[in-house]
Amino acid sequence: MLSETDKKFLKLAYEEAKIGYDEGGCPIGAVLASGDTLIASGHNQRVQQGDPIAHGEMDCLRKAGRQKSYKGMTLYTSLSPCMMCSGTVIQFGIERVVIGEDKNFTGNPQFLRDHGVEVLIADDADCIALMKKFIEEKPELWLEDIAED
Amino acid sequence: MLSETDKKFLKLAYEEAKIGYDEGGCPIGAVLASGDTLIASGHNQRVQQGDPIAHGEMDCLRKAGRQKSYKGMTLYTSLSPCMMCSGTVIQFGIERVVIGEDKNFTGNPQFLRDHGVEVLIADDADCIALMKKFIEEKPELWLEDIAED
Repeated sequence: MLSETDKKFLKLAYEEAKIGYDEGGCPIGAVLASGDTLIASGHNQRVQQGDPIAHGEMDCLRKAGRQKSYKGMTLYTSLSPCMMCSGTVIQFGIERVVIGEDKNFTGNPQFLRDHGVEVLIADDADCIALMKKFIEEKPELWLEDIAED
Repeated sequence: MLSETDKKFLKLAYEEAKIGYDEGGCPIGAVLASGDTLIASGHNQRVQQGDPIAHGEMDCLRKAGRQKSYKGMTLYTSLSPCMMCSGTVIQFGIERVVIGEDKNFTGNPQFLRDHGVEVLIADDADCIALMKKFIEEKPELWLEDIAED
């Protein structure tokens, strides 16, 4: 069950995704927060910076800068995290992940849960629609972003 | 069993690690190669760029830029990969990883193998000595880099 704070930050993750879409990139956005406090937000930079490791979640964590600990923080992401981003969540000790949608890409929520991460999937209509539109418009870019043939 | 090509590129990964050490950063370096062809090299940028996601392997993959596929490539890394970097190897479909050492940090070689990645561990004396020296000199920076208390 998403709290009002969760809804607010997931909406911001979606808005980051929308910025990415408008820039011609992969429309996936993320937010790092500690309770009601925003730490950082970001979005996929594959096209914009030619950077394959800058998925939405990674760009957000980069922008958050050096942290002594991620305890108590929540990572919000418009799309279910891939193995790179899921591995990062586990390595960084991020305890809670709120996912906009897992319809267009399943990601690895069970892998996260198996490592003790609390995972909520919002099934958000805006996130689903934006990602669906992108995949239909730029299927090759999407496959490149997840390194699939 | 490391080939001559493997030895050459692992030495380059070590040299990247040494550059990171001389810059005051975390001394972990990596190389991406396709057979005998160098694609990119890099090293940890936590201190230098204030970037927590730029582990040696990630900085190398960033510098390699956008790739349609990682098939047939080998990632060389001076230190056994953490969960972020291991998840990235799996997501990107990198089929082979050559690790300098796993004495100072175990990393996740079995996780990689379970996902079909060929993993070689060189037990390289230079890699071991450099990382040991760093951890003794800057234990707090090392713990921050792997997000441990």
